[in-house]
Amino acid sequence: MPNNGIQLYYRNALADAVGAEHGVASAELDRLAPRIAEIVERIEHERKAGKRRYRDLPFDARMLAAVHDAVRKHRPGCRNLLVLGIGGSALGNIALQTALNPPYYNLLPAAKRPGPRLFVLDNVDPVQFGEVLDLIEPELDATCVNVITKSGETAETAAQFLAIVDLLQRRLGPAARQRLVITTDPATGAMRRLAQDQRIDTLPVPDGVGGRFSVLSAVGLFSAAMCGIDVDRVLAGAARMNDRISRAVLRENPAALISAIHFLLYERGKRLHVMMPYAHQLKDLADWYRQLWAESLGKRLALDGCEVFAGPTPIKALGTTDQHSQVQLYREGPNDKVITFLVAEAFDRDVILPPRFSEIESLSYLANVPMSRLILSEQIATELALVESRRPCLSIRFPRIAPETIGEFIYLYEAATSIMGLLMNIDAYDQPAVQLGKDLTYALMNRRGYEARAAELRPKIALDPNYLV
Amino acid sequence: MPNNGIQLYYRNALADAVGAEHGVASAELDRLAPRIAEIVERIEHERKAGKRRYRDLPFDARMLAAVHDAVRKHRPGCRNLLVLGIGGSALGNIALQTALNPPYYNLLPAAKRPGPRLFVLDNVDPVQFGEVLDLIEPELDATCVNVITKSGETAETAAQFLAIVDLLQRRLGPAARQRLVITTDPATGAMRRLAQDQRIDTLPVPDGVGGRFSVLSAVGLFSAAMCGIDVDRVLAGAARMNDRISRAVLRENPAALISAIHFLLYERGKRLHVMMPYAHQLKDLADWYRQLWAESLGKRLALDGCEVFAGPTPIKALGTTDQHSQVQLYREGPNDKVITFLVAEAFDRDVILPPRFSEIESLSYLANVPMSRLILSEQIATELALVESRRPCLSIRFPRIAPETIGEFIYLYEAATSIMGLLMNIDAYDQPAVQLGKDLTYALMNRRGYEARAAELRPKIALDPNYLV
Repeated sequence: MPNNGIQLYYRNALADAVGAEHGVASAELDRLAPRIAEIVERIEHERKAGKRRYRDLPFDARMLAAVHDAVRKHRPGCRNLLVLGIGGSALGNIALQTALNPPYYNLLPAAKRPGPRLFVLDNVDPVQFGEVLDLIEPELDATCVNVITKSGETAETAAQFLAIVDLLQRRLGPAARQRLVITTDPATGAMRRLAQDQRIDTLPVPDGVGGRFSVLSAVGLFSAAMCGIDVDRVLAGAARMNDRISRAVLRENPAALISAIHFLLYERGKRLHVMMPYAHQLKDLADWYRQLWAESLGKRLALDGCEVFAGPTPIKALGTTDQHSQVQLYREGPNDKVITFLVAEAFDRDVILPPRFSEIESLSYLANVPMSRLILSEQIATELALVESRRPCLSIRFPRIAPETIGEFIYLYEAATSIMGLLMNIDAYDQPAVQLGKDLTYALMNRRGYEARAAELRPKIALDPNYLV
Repeated sequence: MPNNGIQLYYRNALADAVGAEHGVASAELDRLAPRIAEIVERIEHERKAGKRRYRDLPFDARMLAAVHDAVRKHRPGCRNLLVLGIGGSALGNIALQTALNPPYYNLLPAAKRPGPRLFVLDNVDPVQFGEVLDLIEPELDATCVNVITKSGETAETAAQFLAIVDLLQRRLGPAARQRLVITTDPATGAMRRLAQDQRIDTLPVPDGVGGRFSVLSAVGLFSAAMCGIDVDRVLAGAARMNDRISRAVLRENPAALISAIHFLLYERGKRLHVMMPYAHQLKDLADWYRQLWAESLGKRLALDGCEVFAGPTPIKALGTTDQHSQVQLYREGPNDKVITFLVAEAFDRDVILPPRFSEIESLSYLANVPMSRLILSEQIATELALVESRRPCLSIRFPRIAPETIGEFIYLYEAATSIMGLLMNIDAYDQPAVQLGKDLTYALMNRRGYEARAAELRPKIALDPNYLV
């Protein structure tokens, strides 16, 4: 338990705190402990057999060196960095940026920013995309574009890539290729071939690491390092979490406790897993978690082939903001949620509230108080109010928001996801259900090879006016 | 059914589309129709009795004139607008801005923006707040601050207000008050008194309109109009929806259909109500909806006093982004969701994908295709894939994203919330469960009058190190 590392606090998810009906009993944890020990050991075995490659990323010095090389080459003179990616090729990048760079980073003058402006484009909205093109257009020769797609097939990323490359080539000619960095499969796929043909710089999406587990690879680290984030410290943080999440003893392993508590409560019908950061900087970690948890654990089939339609629904909330939006429901609605607070115990900056208008009772208690004390008090108050309503709560406590603690958090939740997958007896690493949507999109877009699908689709597309109101 | 208005499409939530187990049968709708007729009529009666004041806002010419007067006074020379508010005093403002102004609005040079930069500060994170102070500091005399709090008691808004007023007064002296607009209760409360004492301009939070129903009042409209949004057209859109949501015939009333379908499916265990816009501009409407639906419908007590712990959990998703994050779960996880797509049938701008690299098969199908076709195809594909997995889906179709259609949407969902409250037999207009968190916060902050609460709290605050891992 490093005294400057993040910690899990789990008492408020226990029966002692929220009652036997809604909390986990100590005895339940004890009964689950041997299974957890087996699972943790199984994961360690899988890892040694080269199967849990995401776990090796914090120790991958070669990968880190490649990221630094690319940054050394592309950062000088770079005023805008565009990341073209979606899902696991965007959410980690966004989370690192929000956590470890100043809020309103893109609004700061260049001299106050530790790197280029960052635009992570994880959609294909033409209005939004067109606006980005306008924004970077005057500075195209100072713009770096990082295209991230493992397969090279992702329609959204391919579309963005075409539009941007065209713009670059029309303006810069053959020099356009120098503005690109393609992060893709190390050996195969359309983007790998294209990069080779066009002599475009590349970074690898490591073999055996799925998109949602890839933030600690070049996928997430290149844009972070370009923007001045100390990615060595992020990896060091993840690495120092390694020992804690490898322990076979349930009560000593925070990843195992997170999984065990969520699993036991899931089995009792609490299938909504809310993550509620109390810090602006931590808010996009909740979106990253949302993909990790949903896509890993939402599965129709168990490992034995039985149809189970399993999966908790992760939900993003934000304190204090959502106290004024969701807490009414969280306290009085169905007791179907487990709420995990992310708590920043200290902030890098504070605002002391001045003693103005202190003759007014509803303002006087704020005089000379640091704003950090208000947000921390609101977190405590919200957690206690939820416990009062017998709603189970966890918290992850950040002694400080820093590269190391963010690295710890990422690695902790990745490990918790692996354990949760085995507790739920599902495959946490595939995503079979996204293929159909991709195929139907290809069919609607007249991609070659999808003609039969397109013919099937045609009668299903038209809206029936009888149901349009 | 105005041909340029928004429309609800509901066939994919019916048994015909997703099967009897997961869809609503026509006969079920027919059985519910008389109750809906009663409810719609009851709401019209309540309204005539002055009880559903939010319904009158689109027709409130006096309120609108007051907003325009304030804008005329405060807009000249204004380069930054800060909104200090939280929950219902922020979510509507953010939604209007995202929907009706360009993406990356704050990054645009002043000449390309229709108004001042807008910062809606709906949190009390000291790092984020401190950064905003730094950003506006060089332009304080060109900054307008709109403080929104009905009661004047909201701790977050009060804290922000103190910090900003202090900054303004230190820099501008007595002229500071000219930079403020306080939106608060028309007659009572700390902020009303303060505004009178200090001769600060005010706008009213209308009597009888709860925060989450207030976006079409001065609460939401002042910041929108300051930023160049045509608020008359927003209200005109809402007004033209009025007739449709007042109809007693279920199948002619889109608000009634939204409520009826969600209610029937809620009763069958589908308690997660996902809103998934397929347009960047519509994304923050989902956060606005999240408050409206959660805080209105999440209730412990039924109107008859029975304990029911009712309430659907609204969830925000975003297309296409969340196809790569949540759709795996939505298709294969528990069939416990109703998914509502927000579809923009046309975009104000398009990007034609150039025919580059068209020798590469995975890129060639995109050549010469407008990006809007890709996002629209992905929406259709996702909806069909969900229907294939028997997941009920609705869609709200925007012929165009414009002030009128946004106004329609807001008013439609407010009306649907009223109807849903009566179907669920709960009070959709109160929020009793948020008080405890506020009281505990006051106690932790040593506010006068909360000493007993503070004494009670003291033993509960310390973390038990046995549960810290």
